[in-house]
Amino acid sequence: MVAQDLTVSIDAMGGDAGPGVVVAALARSVLRHPKVNYLLHGDEAVLKPLVARRSKLEGRVEIRHAPERVRMEEKPSQALRRGRNTSMWHAIESVAKGEAQVAISAGNTGALMAMSMFQLHTIEGIDRPAIASVWPTKRGQTVVLDVGANVESDAQQLADFAVMGEAFARAVLGLERPSVGLLNVGAEDVKGHDAVKGAAQILRNVKLPMEFAGFVEGDDIAEGTVDVVVTDGFTGNIALKTAEGTAKLVVHFLRSALKRSLLGRLGAVLASGALNALRRKLDPRTSNGGIFLGLAGVVVKSHGSTDALGFACALDMAIDMAKAGVIPKIIADHAEVARLVAETHADSGAAI
Amino acid sequence: MVAQDLTVSIDAMGGDAGPGVVVAALARSVLRHPKVNYLLHGDEAVLKPLVARRSKLEGRVEIRHAPERVRMEEKPSQALRRGRNTSMWHAIESVAKGEAQVAISAGNTGALMAMSMFQLHTIEGIDRPAIASVWPTKRGQTVVLDVGANVESDAQQLADFAVMGEAFARAVLGLERPSVGLLNVGAEDVKGHDAVKGAAQILRNVKLPMEFAGFVEGDDIAEGTVDVVVTDGFTGNIALKTAEGTAKLVVHFLRSALKRSLLGRLGAVLASGALNALRRKLDPRTSNGGIFLGLAGVVVKSHGSTDALGFACALDMAIDMAKAGVIPKIIADHAEVARLVAETHADSGAAI
Repeated sequence: MVAQDLTVSIDAMGGDAGPGVVVAALARSVLRHPKVNYLLHGDEAVLKPLVARRSKLEGRVEIRHAPERVRMEEKPSQALRRGRNTSMWHAIESVAKGEAQVAISAGNTGALMAMSMFQLHTIEGIDRPAIASVWPTKRGQTVVLDVGANVESDAQQLADFAVMGEAFARAVLGLERPSVGLLNVGAEDVKGHDAVKGAAQILRNVKLPMEFAGFVEGDDIAEGTVDVVVTDGFTGNIALKTAEGTAKLVVHFLRSALKRSLLGRLGAVLASGALNALRRKLDPRTSNGGIFLGLAGVVVKSHGSTDALGFACALDMAIDMAKAGVIPKIIADHAEVARLVAETHADSGAAI
Repeated sequence: MVAQDLTVSIDAMGGDAGPGVVVAALARSVLRHPKVNYLLHGDEAVLKPLVARRSKLEGRVEIRHAPERVRMEEKPSQALRRGRNTSMWHAIESVAKGEAQVAISAGNTGALMAMSMFQLHTIEGIDRPAIASVWPTKRGQTVVLDVGANVESDAQQLADFAVMGEAFARAVLGLERPSVGLLNVGAEDVKGHDAVKGAAQILRNVKLPMEFAGFVEGDDIAEGTVDVVVTDGFTGNIALKTAEGTAKLVVHFLRSALKRSLLGRLGAVLASGALNALRRKLDPRTSNGGIFLGLAGVVVKSHGSTDALGFACALDMAIDMAKAGVIPKIIADHAEVARLVAETHADSGAAI
């Protein structure tokens, strides 16, 4: 085992719940990750007493004062213009300077993406980063991207997302040769719009450590048909929230069905262990953490309204990401896609 | 009560399961709808013995011989070219001729849409029909459209879908002033692509018997935040299948959690009534039936792999649709939208 001297840079002021939740999450994280250090960016006057109250944080957490914060309703462009003194900007800056290996925030997603792109830049040749999310499925876990960084994506961008997702699945989920599917309205070649058909054409020909499985449909996500599901950020975001809403709805139906009769209520008492296990399995906090892929640095977005348990899970994800070395894998694979796209353009040029 | 002399025209050869399922569904439907008559299009040699075996179908079902059928994998254009002798074509033709008030098929969706557009035409001024689907939610039911007729839609088309969904919700769900939301990646005005932002602009200004609620997100569907959710067919299809997959996944997790311990198994036995109620509530067969909206005739698509119970539910939907008079409502509301769009164009022309 190699000693890990990893540093995580945290925007302590992001999210709806504020720094109290972040510090409570830190108290969990320091125990799970004894070799990790934490930089905590935010209002010193608020953070100091919160950290001092927890003795296990002693020597593990360094507070860095940032006088301002990005508001949740702020436009990305506005945050970028006026935000140099915010805790979010400082958190990313620590990664840009090499003081930390990963930044994390529960704040404004658009602002976090804009500031990350500005300070860390995208990997050469990659137009747009994507946000990846790890979903529970029948067979384990599936990476879905983009779940909201971009509202539209062309064929090349979708192919890049496939490369990023594949590198992530290898590095973080430990899969040797992840299978990758493009989300579409049917499995047949003729289905879908131009972007998704074009991306399939690129991915069919590219030589990468992935198994390209062609098109998959919405129900294939929960089924776990493939390890990585690629889509544009509009569709991905709506699919993610539709799935979260549906899971809640089924639990709601279950609860009201059980309440309706004495036998149901008795059964629920007996099966309470199982029902709690189900609740844990579906707990959105345990799969909290949107991973920004395509940047020359690692940034993780926690859900804005999560609690200490949720933020601690996002910290786990951030630390896994930082350890796994995803970025060099993305760089190498992207070069192969770019080569193929260039060749295809040259070929079609020759054919004219 | 007015006597209803309604005739339903059925493609008996569509779907994976074949005419056996369709005839079994008819046996349920004739009891539920004593004043409805049925035209059954398909291979007479197959259908005659199936119908003869069920005495309650006597006098209620007329078999119309069609020598061919549309195959599930056939391209819409191909089906349209060579399909004039198919049961699907004939089923729609009965509506075009006025012999029946609604057509239903469990066959190839693309072919059914193409043949319906060819024979029944779209309502004047409406470019593209949409497929609507009724989802169970926390508060009751929500209409979602488009769930797969179009892979891309512009602002005007999305506004038309809102009109169609609103008319459907008034006519079939019996709501006086349905609330309508546009599916997007966030509730703020700046979110989303041009089509969804443009549609919001049209709907904000139009005077219709609906409450335009602005943007809604994926989890608002299951929540039942609005009565009608409008989106393009790509996103809607993926949302629909993601929701179906997620509901199945949660039930799968529940089942395995209950099996894991003796108490869980005992609890499940006691609560079996409640668990069966949940199963019925989530049964996709009971919300079977995609409704084609925007045509000058009523067409319903049943899921291809459903059974007799599922096809009978789609028949219920078809009969409700035919009774409700949705089409005149869509025509009236669409005229109002068209007027507004024309005015806006005139205004912006004047402003230049």
